[in-house]
Amino acid sequence: MLTALKGNILEALSPDILGVHPNSYLVLEDGRVAGIHTVLPKSMGEAAVTDFGGALILQSFADMHLHGPQYEITGTGMDKPLLQWLEAYAFPTEAKYADADYARKQYRILAHDLIQNGTTRVAMFSSLHTDATLILMEELEKAGVTGYVGKVNMDRNAPPYLCETTEESEKETLRWLEACKRFTLVKPILTPRFAPSCSDRLLSFLGKLKAERNLPVQSHLSENTGEIALVAQLFPDCPQYWEVYDKYGLFDRNTLMAHCVHSDARERTAMRMRDVHPVHCASSNNSLMSGISPVAQMLREEQAVCLGSDVSGGTTLSMLRTMANSISSSKDRGSMMQDQSQAISIEQAYYMATGAGQRFLGHGVGFAEGEPLHAVVLDDTGLPKLPNITFRERLLRAVYRLDDRHIRAVYSEGLRRL
Amino acid sequence: MLTALKGNILEALSPDILGVHPNSYLVLEDGRVAGIHTVLPKSMGEAAVTDFGGALILQSFADMHLHGPQYEITGTGMDKPLLQWLEAYAFPTEAKYADADYARKQYRILAHDLIQNGTTRVAMFSSLHTDATLILMEELEKAGVTGYVGKVNMDRNAPPYLCETTEESEKETLRWLEACKRFTLVKPILTPRFAPSCSDRLLSFLGKLKAERNLPVQSHLSENTGEIALVAQLFPDCPQYWEVYDKYGLFDRNTLMAHCVHSDARERTAMRMRDVHPVHCASSNNSLMSGISPVAQMLREEQAVCLGSDVSGGTTLSMLRTMANSISSSKDRGSMMQDQSQAISIEQAYYMATGAGQRFLGHGVGFAEGEPLHAVVLDDTGLPKLPNITFRERLLRAVYRLDDRHIRAVYSEGLRRL
Repeated sequence: MLTALKGNILEALSPDILGVHPNSYLVLEDGRVAGIHTVLPKSMGEAAVTDFGGALILQSFADMHLHGPQYEITGTGMDKPLLQWLEAYAFPTEAKYADADYARKQYRILAHDLIQNGTTRVAMFSSLHTDATLILMEELEKAGVTGYVGKVNMDRNAPPYLCETTEESEKETLRWLEACKRFTLVKPILTPRFAPSCSDRLLSFLGKLKAERNLPVQSHLSENTGEIALVAQLFPDCPQYWEVYDKYGLFDRNTLMAHCVHSDARERTAMRMRDVHPVHCASSNNSLMSGISPVAQMLREEQAVCLGSDVSGGTTLSMLRTMANSISSSKDRGSMMQDQSQAISIEQAYYMATGAGQRFLGHGVGFAEGEPLHAVVLDDTGLPKLPNITFRERLLRAVYRLDDRHIRAVYSEGLRRL
Repeated sequence: MLTALKGNILEALSPDILGVHPNSYLVLEDGRVAGIHTVLPKSMGEAAVTDFGGALILQSFADMHLHGPQYEITGTGMDKPLLQWLEAYAFPTEAKYADADYARKQYRILAHDLIQNGTTRVAMFSSLHTDATLILMEELEKAGVTGYVGKVNMDRNAPPYLCETTEESEKETLRWLEACKRFTLVKPILTPRFAPSCSDRLLSFLGKLKAERNLPVQSHLSENTGEIALVAQLFPDCPQYWEVYDKYGLFDRNTLMAHCVHSDARERTAMRMRDVHPVHCASSNNSLMSGISPVAQMLREEQAVCLGSDVSGGTTLSMLRTMANSISSSKDRGSMMQDQSQAISIEQAYYMATGAGQRFLGHGVGFAEGEPLHAVVLDDTGLPKLPNITFRERLLRAVYRLDDRHIRAVYSEGLRRL
């Protein structure tokens, strides 16, 4: 069946190239992208057109780092640095997800709010609870959110009420992976919480599992100076933080590393050589005063940087606001260093919020032909009509001034979900 | 007539003290604050109560620096530093306000949007056009926005299409002041745009006028390094920027100075000694990469810092978001300097966004008894119910997560305006 969306279509083709198709048709065949045309070709004349007028048709958002069970406390507890913040706020909240009914209720809200905000792709941390993790995956899939979810592994340096033995962690990980087979849109990703909360034996187990089953991995890297010092103390044989993951085979092209605020040239080179995907979390880095990531520099180095809301270190689930925050923090970094080249562009923010995540998930960039549609229709027509405004300026303005109430439609896997 | 608002009343009593009145009555007599009570006293038993349930009753916002005619371009043109930004975007937009009909249409939107966002007090720059300035004042007064508006003076270093002769500037200022007599809620404030755009003769004229008529003044100070260099070149007899204003009697307790990003200890001391009010404009300082103001330091020095959205160098008219931006930028400054003491608190942000402006406008702090009510009711009851959350945390969360759609009521001068 042929259908088409009509509007101003903007594609993030690379960190520097915005593809602009004013007043065009995004044609779909059975929900898969069949091309973008300024005039409907004769062969597609029978397509049922949904006309969004002057609105912007964007790729929907890929939030490549967030913690599902922390969503409920978003916007609170921003007065401590990372390690103290985990103890005071994150861990007690995650512990509540031992209760499956509670998890169901909360994760249904999260899944709804993700779609509401135009996020159709995620790489998400659950808690260590296997059952709650499966519930999270179910609720995401039901709502139309695709991507990866990971049961968290943590067998040390965690409070007694939120810690597994190594054996439990291994056994539960296998049980979880088995149960994941029923999902089609949401896939499992191995999730050692971060180096300090995993024993060598657990990391070794996860590394072997990754290799055997070709699984992706997500974790944290060089977020905060206190955390980095702790890693150095716990893994004295690893000169740098990344080498802990690398040692156990958890550091390659199938790996997401959140934060990388303090990654120096050597660590960044290691990431680039192994095609590891850093995930930039501007809001959380700001809230917990972890530092400002050198994201412009990383893009110049051709790192495959994605964006993450990092709820609830981050203060918002909205990827529009996450883009704005990533631009703002890069400008703050530039101001403090008196170096304009630290500022990122709207093209870069949009690509990091969409295309970079798509690629990690195995998809093409932009609205790639043959792939199921993931799109968000953002209606900026209520904002002032400025005579000479370009589409890149309209996108920047939309990112700063609009929110979920201006999202008129969300498509995921070819289906309209909002 | 006795009336009362019921809810959780939060008062900014000083930059460090949040007054908290859970589930209390804010009692009004003919729209003026008559007290806050946990139980209605018998003598007030007949008050008609508007019950806002669990919502937060806050002081409404005082936006102490913004440019009315620039509102329409908010969120665009953020790719240039100040002086180039003025030439490319601000000046051409302001020039449109030579047309009174155009001004009427645009300023009606601005006045509506201010109330919609809970801003009932302003110190605003108009353009140099006298008639459009009067229209702006009319529209604000009609909508219930109070405070100060200034016809801009600029007789040099401005494009030919947006420049007055000194004679015109003097004559039009007098005509404008005469016409302002009809306003009751919106008062005139002398507004030399900034030192570079005013000749010595014009500054001298404005200084005399200020002294004769006891008028307040607003201008810009030490926003950007290029601007500071230009001032040094134009006023070689003044060792520092502030001394230009001081020389002409435009630098005292009746003066607002926007930005002060690069004000060093000497300039800050001069401000404090003269009780000049700096206006912190975090969003604009970020967007134009002017720098990050040392606002925590200024508060420690007991400067009377106000907040300004600085539309359209700033990207938002919302003072909720302006508070969030002021906290975020202070944390970015702290991260870059590795100095936690650069971060400001929610108490400080709320006071700067309300009480500091109230004081400049001649009012008491908090919900001062005997004064007409200025309040905003912010409904955060849709956010997760967290068992041990404090009111200061609820306020911080609200600032980060809520927007104008959560503003259930706005009171200005004792009248409900939304």
